[in-house]
Amino acid sequence: VLSTSKSIPDPHQRDQLLQQEASQQVGGRVDLTAAEQRLDSLLHKLKEQEMVAPHFPPAMHFFKAKPYIQKSPIFRLLQKMPKGAVLHIHNSALVGVDWLVMNVTYRPHCYVCFTWSGSVQFLFSTQRPFPRWGCSAWSLLEHVRATISDVSAFDKSLMKNLTLFTEEPDVAYPTQEVVWERFEQTFMAISGLITFAPVFKDYIYQGLQQLYDDNILYLELRAGLSKIYELDGTIRDSEWSIQTYRNITEQFRLEHPDFVGVRIIVTVHRILSLSQVEIALKETLELQKRYPEIITGFDLVGREDSGKPIWYFREVLSLPTEVKAKLSYIFHAGETDSYGTDVDRNVLDALLFNTTRIGHGFAVAHHPLAKELSRKRRVPVEVCPISNQVLKLVSDLRNHPAAILMSEGHPLVVSSDDPTLFGNAGLSYDFYEVFVGIGGLSANVGTLKELAINSIRYSSLPTVLQDKAMIIWQQKWDKFVLENSL
Amino acid sequence: VLSTSKSIPDPHQRDQLLQQEASQQVGGRVDLTAAEQRLDSLLHKLKEQEMVAPHFPPAMHFFKAKPYIQKSPIFRLLQKMPKGAVLHIHNSALVGVDWLVMNVTYRPHCYVCFTWSGSVQFLFSTQRPFPRWGCSAWSLLEHVRATISDVSAFDKSLMKNLTLFTEEPDVAYPTQEVVWERFEQTFMAISGLITFAPVFKDYIYQGLQQLYDDNILYLELRAGLSKIYELDGTIRDSEWSIQTYRNITEQFRLEHPDFVGVRIIVTVHRILSLSQVEIALKETLELQKRYPEIITGFDLVGREDSGKPIWYFREVLSLPTEVKAKLSYIFHAGETDSYGTDVDRNVLDALLFNTTRIGHGFAVAHHPLAKELSRKRRVPVEVCPISNQVLKLVSDLRNHPAAILMSEGHPLVVSSDDPTLFGNAGLSYDFYEVFVGIGGLSANVGTLKELAINSIRYSSLPTVLQDKAMIIWQQKWDKFVLENSL
Ligand SMILES: [Zn+2]
Ligand SMILES: [Zn+2]
Repeated sequence: VLSTSKSIPDPHQRDQLLQQEASQQVGGRVDLTAAEQRLDSLLHKLKEQEMVAPHFPPAMHFFKAKPYIQKSPIFRLLQKMPKGAVLHIHNSALVGVDWLVMNVTYRPHCYVCFTWSGSVQFLFSTQRPFPRWGCSAWSLLEHVRATISDVSAFDKSLMKNLTLFTEEPDVAYPTQEVVWERFEQTFMAISGLITFAPVFKDYIYQGLQQLYDDNILYLELRAGLSKIYELDGTIRDSEWSIQTYRNITEQFRLEHPDFVGVRIIVTVHRILSLSQVEIALKETLELQKRYPEIITGFDLVGREDSGKPIWYFREVLSLPTEVKAKLSYIFHAGETDSYGTDVDRNVLDALLFNTTRIGHGFAVAHHPLAKELSRKRRVPVEVCPISNQVLKLVSDLRNHPAAILMSEGHPLVVSSDDPTLFGNAGLSYDFYEVFVGIGGLSANVGTLKELAINSIRYSSLPTVLQDKAMIIWQQKWDKFVLENSL
Repeated sequence: VLSTSKSIPDPHQRDQLLQQEASQQVGGRVDLTAAEQRLDSLLHKLKEQEMVAPHFPPAMHFFKAKPYIQKSPIFRLLQKMPKGAVLHIHNSALVGVDWLVMNVTYRPHCYVCFTWSGSVQFLFSTQRPFPRWGCSAWSLLEHVRATISDVSAFDKSLMKNLTLFTEEPDVAYPTQEVVWERFEQTFMAISGLITFAPVFKDYIYQGLQQLYDDNILYLELRAGLSKIYELDGTIRDSEWSIQTYRNITEQFRLEHPDFVGVRIIVTVHRILSLSQVEIALKETLELQKRYPEIITGFDLVGREDSGKPIWYFREVLSLPTEVKAKLSYIFHAGETDSYGTDVDRNVLDALLFNTTRIGHGFAVAHHPLAKELSRKRRVPVEVCPISNQVLKLVSDLRNHPAAILMSEGHPLVVSSDDPTLFGNAGLSYDFYEVFVGIGGLSANVGTLKELAINSIRYSSLPTVLQDKAMIIWQQKWDKFVLENSL
């Protein structure tokens, strides 16, 4: 043995290096029970099979990959798996599009108009609303449907307007600019439906139900201070929205005691002016004083490449420190591939403003210094693979830079950003992409476990509630492992 | 100032962090002369313009990007720039396809046959060669051309068979498997042309001329121990090839005294058996004893995902150490996105076998431990962006993992792998992709300078010859900077 190890690299040393590398990755130091190890072997075998199959979903655009993912036995396991919390999801894209069209647009008083750019807008109203610039005359949906022979095809076309789904995404969306324009347009279309007060309440409930069904136990929702309208035109203020979030969540928790709750990260569009952002931030600070169990953070949203960088808002953003408020920043940062530009400094600036998590952080791996800071301060990156793919930051998800963060054991959580718009719901699809695509064959049950635990430990919940959530999660996890490791 | 810096992050501290980050990148510590700084400003301005233009070449497939790159003023500067050495290029793909078709196939005695899979094969012979399985009957190209009305279209179709170029690469090559099959087929087609002894000599000369014209001063060529044939069927052995490389290089250097030379890395296909690899390695060791100024290393080539991993050959590969030979390994390793598989261990194993450089190393950034080892031992990664894109490891080159290595100041050289097959020549296109795409706006004149110097300092040349090459390069560089910084 000794003579061989002089010429060949020592196989024992090699094993040690491989083990050392494996232990560095996300989940690499998680101890596994015997049952977890059995589940791990099963998942490993399944993953090897999927990696050599003719269609490897993570290498394909999600719109083409979805039917293959649905057939995957790994995906079906991930659906059943208790995934912990969802920490990055936007309130306008929380619920599947089927429900929006088949439930919401079938409600009375729903008006529709068709925009010049081929999209739609909705408004609930007792009488025909005032015409909107860029849109056809308003028609009552009920009447439109009555004149149409193929209502099912019409409903499908409505659904198409409420998601980015298309059979040929690379043709429909040749550039980031094109897909982002369509993205913002779709939000506009959804907005008229879900900001109608009665729908708003049902929408929140439906959203929680879908997450719960996907084995999620807690939600941190990014939501703008948008106004909610009643049928008679009355406008409800943001306080009313916050109270509604609270009330619906309480109602949902009564019926689902193993759901932990909802907290809100207030968002404002980064395209707005300094003074508009200042107004929103001040309102958030006020709201947080009154609803500290609900309002947990503040964020700037919208495309980073076309909006203003964090540093532009620096004076305004120092307000909470000045008034000694306890509002956290939970910034979107580094959702870009414009490396080296001003926008690309958002990751560093988010950290300098003590962000508690980094939304997307697609660019984090490209900034060794910021990466180190994020790791040392335990500021996790919220990885949203399907969102990054649909919005054209990456095509083959094996190339997602989170793979590098995973290999280094960087603090990470998995999230889904805008499931409605991606024709998606819950978190299982994103977990599939992370586990099978980004993580490759190295990702294992320890990885899944650490990612689920991270989602609770990196949430804004106070420690007591985190502990409570951990107990609930652990029970579900043990049951899941037991049932799937036979 | 003090009171503001309590709330806002201190702008000075931020500047320091940004500078610290900039200094970590490849070229970040290179001192620039006043003239170099002027060139840098110019390049920065040009790059900003290209980043916002409607077609950003590094985001497109090279086959579509090429005409845009040719129009780029940055590209034209990079063509003129003294780029140092090319360290990763294969002997079968050294010369532009135009020369192969318009010069080589017009020589007398050139026979062609058309394969069942739609490719071609060539053979020079005084009489009609013996038929080949899978190919039509051999026809003299002269006769074929005489019967064809549109010879120019025919020649274009031949060119198409000698490169991977196609107008719609994503349609023609839906998977890595498909493009690799076509890739190997194309090598077969080229082989019959360039292994004909008289062509072989001219081919080497022409290859050196094209590199020289692209402002390259030294070449490290990966070449198999392939047999060269004469018109009468005589077969020349590898020693004859090595002597020919030496003689042609000497002839070229007589006419171009500022060209430093050529060294050969002997390659063997990783799909071969242990004993076949052993025979090739032993032959290489013998050749190296006799031609130590030419034979510099040994490598395993071919698609890693379908060949055998380095560890499979471990016993054979320990031979040079056993016999105390001075042959370097310069392994292809990590040209894969099958993370976590056996193939994915090639990067670590290449390092354990003391590879002096890592060919491609696409997977290096995914292996923190191997990355650290490569950095500490100053084992550079040979980045071949266009090759990785065409062979479908990455589509948008901004996502190439070398971006992360660049941001960390990892030892890197730029190379072009198989220019013929990519419809390319020299190194300027790959330099463009690295400078504009992978490096983003952060890459600057310091980056270019360090990459060029790296290509000399990480070559297999002994220090004396490196110093000589550096002197030649520095003179050319100073002239280039002076002429382009007005
Ligand atoms: Zn988001
Ligand atoms: Zn190569």
